[in-house]
Amino acid sequence: MGLEGLPGVDQVIPISRPYKLASSELSHHEPTVFDVDGRRVGGGQTFCLIAGLCTVESPEQTLGVARAVAAAGASMLRGGAFKPRTSPFSFQGLGREGLRILADARAEVGLPIVSEMTSAQLADDFAEAVDVVQVGARNMQNYGLLEVAGKLGKPVLLKRGLSSTLEELLQAADYVLKEGNERVILCERGIRTFDTAMRFTLDLGAVPWLKLHTHLPVIVDPSHASGDRRLVGPLSRAAAAAGADGIIVEVAVDPDVALCDGPQQLYAADFARFAAEVAAHARLLGKKLA
Amino acid sequence: MGLEGLPGVDQVIPISRPYKLASSELSHHEPTVFDVDGRRVGGGQTFCLIAGLCTVESPEQTLGVARAVAAAGASMLRGGAFKPRTSPFSFQGLGREGLRILADARAEVGLPIVSEMTSAQLADDFAEAVDVVQVGARNMQNYGLLEVAGKLGKPVLLKRGLSSTLEELLQAADYVLKEGNERVILCERGIRTFDTAMRFTLDLGAVPWLKLHTHLPVIVDPSHASGDRRLVGPLSRAAAAAGADGIIVEVAVDPDVALCDGPQQLYAADFARFAAEVAAHARLLGKKLA
Amino acid sequence: MGLEGLPGVDQVIPISRPYKLASSELSHHEPTVFDVDGRRVGGGQTFCLIAGLCTVESPEQTLGVARAVAAAGASMLRGGAFKPRTSPFSFQGLGREGLRILADARAEVGLPIVSEMTSAQLADDFAEAVDVVQVGARNMQNYGLLEVAGKLGKPVLLKRGLSSTLEELLQAADYVLKEGNERVILCERGIRTFDTAMRFTLDLGAVPWLKLHTHLPVIVDPSHASGDRRLVGPLSRAAAAAGADGIIVEVAVDPDVALCDGPQQLYAADFARFAAEVAAHARLLGKKLA
Amino acid sequence: MGLEGLPGVDQVIPISRPYKLASSELSHHEPTVFDVDGRRVGGGQTFCLIAGLCTVESPEQTLGVARAVAAAGASMLRGGAFKPRTSPFSFQGLGREGLRILADARAEVGLPIVSEMTSAQLADDFAEAVDVVQVGARNMQNYGLLEVAGKLGKPVLLKRGLSSTLEELLQAADYVLKEGNERVILCERGIRTFDTAMRFTLDLGAVPWLKLHTHLPVIVDPSHASGDRRLVGPLSRAAAAAGADGIIVEVAVDPDVALCDGPQQLYAADFARFAAEVAAHARLLGKKLA
Repeated sequence: MGLEGLPGVDQVIPISRPYKLASSELSHHEPTVFDVDGRRVGGGQTFCLIAGLCTVESPEQTLGVARAVAAAGASMLRGGAFKPRTSPFSFQGLGREGLRILADARAEVGLPIVSEMTSAQLADDFAEAVDVVQVGARNMQNYGLLEVAGKLGKPVLLKRGLSSTLEELLQAADYVLKEGNERVILCERGIRTFDTAMRFTLDLGAVPWLKLHTHLPVIVDPSHASGDRRLVGPLSRAAAAAGADGIIVEVAVDPDVALCDGPQQLYAADFARFAAEVAAHARLLGKKLA
Repeated sequence: MGLEGLPGVDQVIPISRPYKLASSELSHHEPTVFDVDGRRVGGGQTFCLIAGLCTVESPEQTLGVARAVAAAGASMLRGGAFKPRTSPFSFQGLGREGLRILADARAEVGLPIVSEMTSAQLADDFAEAVDVVQVGARNMQNYGLLEVAGKLGKPVLLKRGLSSTLEELLQAADYVLKEGNERVILCERGIRTFDTAMRFTLDLGAVPWLKLHTHLPVIVDPSHASGDRRLVGPLSRAAAAAGADGIIVEVAVDPDVALCDGPQQLYAADFARFAAEVAAHARLLGKKLA
Repeated sequence: MGLEGLPGVDQVIPISRPYKLASSELSHHEPTVFDVDGRRVGGGQTFCLIAGLCTVESPEQTLGVARAVAAAGASMLRGGAFKPRTSPFSFQGLGREGLRILADARAEVGLPIVSEMTSAQLADDFAEAVDVVQVGARNMQNYGLLEVAGKLGKPVLLKRGLSSTLEELLQAADYVLKEGNERVILCERGIRTFDTAMRFTLDLGAVPWLKLHTHLPVIVDPSHASGDRRLVGPLSRAAAAAGADGIIVEVAVDPDVALCDGPQQLYAADFARFAAEVAAHARLLGKKLA
Repeated sequence: MGLEGLPGVDQVIPISRPYKLASSELSHHEPTVFDVDGRRVGGGQTFCLIAGLCTVESPEQTLGVARAVAAAGASMLRGGAFKPRTSPFSFQGLGREGLRILADARAEVGLPIVSEMTSAQLADDFAEAVDVVQVGARNMQNYGLLEVAGKLGKPVLLKRGLSSTLEELLQAADYVLKEGNERVILCERGIRTFDTAMRFTLDLGAVPWLKLHTHLPVIVDPSHASGDRRLVGPLSRAAAAAGADGIIVEVAVDPDVALCDGPQQLYAADFARFAAEVAAHARLLGKKLA
């Protein structure tokens, strides 16, 4: 730029956002809005309540939760079929059988299905069985998986890595967006910090920060962040008040017998009241349940 | 306990909370509620809106803000007279002159004063001039200062250290409580993490966690946490929705000329709308402005 | 265990290490020692000096570095052919062409090759071209990739994730070990913390901690940890003094024109002196260069 | 500077180090070297071995350790008389009685005394009783205390706060230096991170980073960093190899009965071997014990 030689100039630092396609500024992009089987995601007029199981264990357990959350007005049903686990000796989910159980629940209660894809090899299975493909926190920088997710032609729910900066989250979104898939939902799910009072530290400032910097919808996962159902209600309300486009929470009919993450799951019997409280805060921002 | 010798016992670990007086469990304590010049703090029926200047710079600047926040329904006026600064070469505040300006503002607009005490030597000055003595994040483990604050006979607003665990915050509160002073307000103000998108990471999970573990009132400081006024509105609403007993925010008539922290200060002209939005979320939890 | 009912017993917590195969305790395992083309890794009598390029850019650049580090006594040659990059718009490496260039360098200078495998689809290429398969920090919890690496029949260099605990590193190693592959090298490469003075915070305490808890060899990567060549010498010496089984460092003939990570690369012209200094500290612990 | 209006210029950012007096660049300062009762600190030719008790409990316990470390060649004796404790209900040290016991030990074994000053009110006591005044990690940003320490006319050992950046450490040093006291020793003692395998994460990269940016001597405290005596040997050797000017470690004749921090204390019976091993690494850098 010809500034280097001027008196008083030590260094010329070109400033540009490292994320390009996800940026609201660089692409002069209107907020991204899209439909998932009739539920509107993004755009500021709807709030997306995704609820369901941590892990699919049986048809009965899955249907029980699916009916409860559908009755309370949930927008979509979540459920894990393939579970990435820290230890190879932990339960890894039912796999393809789990996807089949979720598809049956969709047929029964009519909610779109969100489930995590853990490997590029599973692309065909997920293309068939689910409505929103989740990329989990551990895989946020698994670039091969992001590209495959981008090519599937399905909305992608991209979770923030547990020690990823918000810039890195948007750069990871760029891997999906560059495949021509604009239907990406970003998800704040808690970051790793020094404090051990809760499982992770939910970074709710990420919600308004992302709203300033990207056109993509932003949701919050308070279940994994806190690891404690007593905190999920307050943090879900706070997410709505902070301007999130939705939340994703875990619910169980009997969390005390769950194979995984029981203490963070809401009781299905309490879910209708929970949903109403969250919706009341979303309504103050002009949003109704999707 | 006589368990050590039993077969299968490797170690006996006695479990007890490291904070004693601040604990709601150990002391079987009802939520602490008290009045500051007629404003009720704690107890679940009021929301405390503390607003004002980062740093007192002049009588005119102080009065301008004091009138604006009083008109919008603020509960108390904050303002810094003694400023702890990372570098000895930064502006350190007006000192005792600043306390006098705050006292004049109280006389004029009728709001109780909150200001930070940075040294035990200033105890007499603060006893006379302020209504709530703030202990700042840098001094959360300055135990001599905590004891002096405990003896002053004034409510103490204790900010969480920027890398303190919630347990350490409650142990620091114990230093005040053991002097016989029960009027302690805990304040979450953002913690230090790896992310640099915002100045600190506001830990809103701390609000419901503290509500489960202590009887003391809990407020939130979104101004210092985010360092960005565009995030203060969403995070203040979120604090109310998460169940906080109040917030403390920075406001300026013209933040662009402030000597310190201008970008995080709300415009006084926007404050009434801001306060109404936060109050609406508090009202959903059954609270009205204190 | 029948303790639950005893007076004074609140809860019975069974204690077991979450990593099983990597544990030195649970498996009563002697330190793992193995050869890579005649270089001994692990066992306390050798120090492994892995050096080379960040990214393979051309045959000339690669051979220049390979000759320099071979002449100075390096044990193995590192070089990146497939580069996982935060942004999809950054240079991603030469791919298979890079692997061919590395194989040519091995033929010329006789050093075994270490290179990062970023995807399970590349397994055949890596089985043919490299001597040690690296799994990078971003992929430490890409479990599908770990299992494929475990099945390749090659030693695996497993880097610690940038926010992974040491327990999680050992659990990730379990994914490789359970495939019957015992030749795993653990690598501390810096963790993400609040401090921004250096790129990451090198956790040298990890070296003796891992030595207490696992039978696997442990090396250190001070280049990526610090991001600054002026720190690589002191931290490499420190790694040797802390008891590491080796280091992995980046070297370039002309780092100032590198496409990636230039400031952290040692000058090839300084490498012989660097190697001698590190070796002197290793010798105090009874180790000679592998 | 008149650059603002030029085409392509978005913003002009003046670059300056925020620490002024501690900076080696801004002050064109030679490395600071000084004597403590005949022991040379700083300057690259000596290594300072400060050893002793966590907390002074009795004259016998203190003398036992003092004799052991003096016999093994320690440079100075550390011992805590005033202990800052997270909980007000923990043992806070013997206070002035502890200082008297340390003074007696100095008279007996001839080692200079290092002890932590926790409050400005204790200035006269410390001026009389100790040779090096320590400011602890919790008080690194207790600016009133730093100024008082700066005025005492004694060398000051300044520990890094457990979540302080290196820039903040140098700015804290500026508070001492501006009082005209140049005899400041910086101490890396571990920082707070997400990992819980060790008590803190020792940041040994801080040693060469500080050597590049300040003229002040730098030492390392591996005892508090690791909280585990089995790690203190490897980390002390590593500190020497990284170029530190010394270390400060805890030693006890019988750590198993210590009132505080027993598991991190070296056995006095092992100290001579420990000291010899550390000294061997320092010798490779041209340093002998001070």
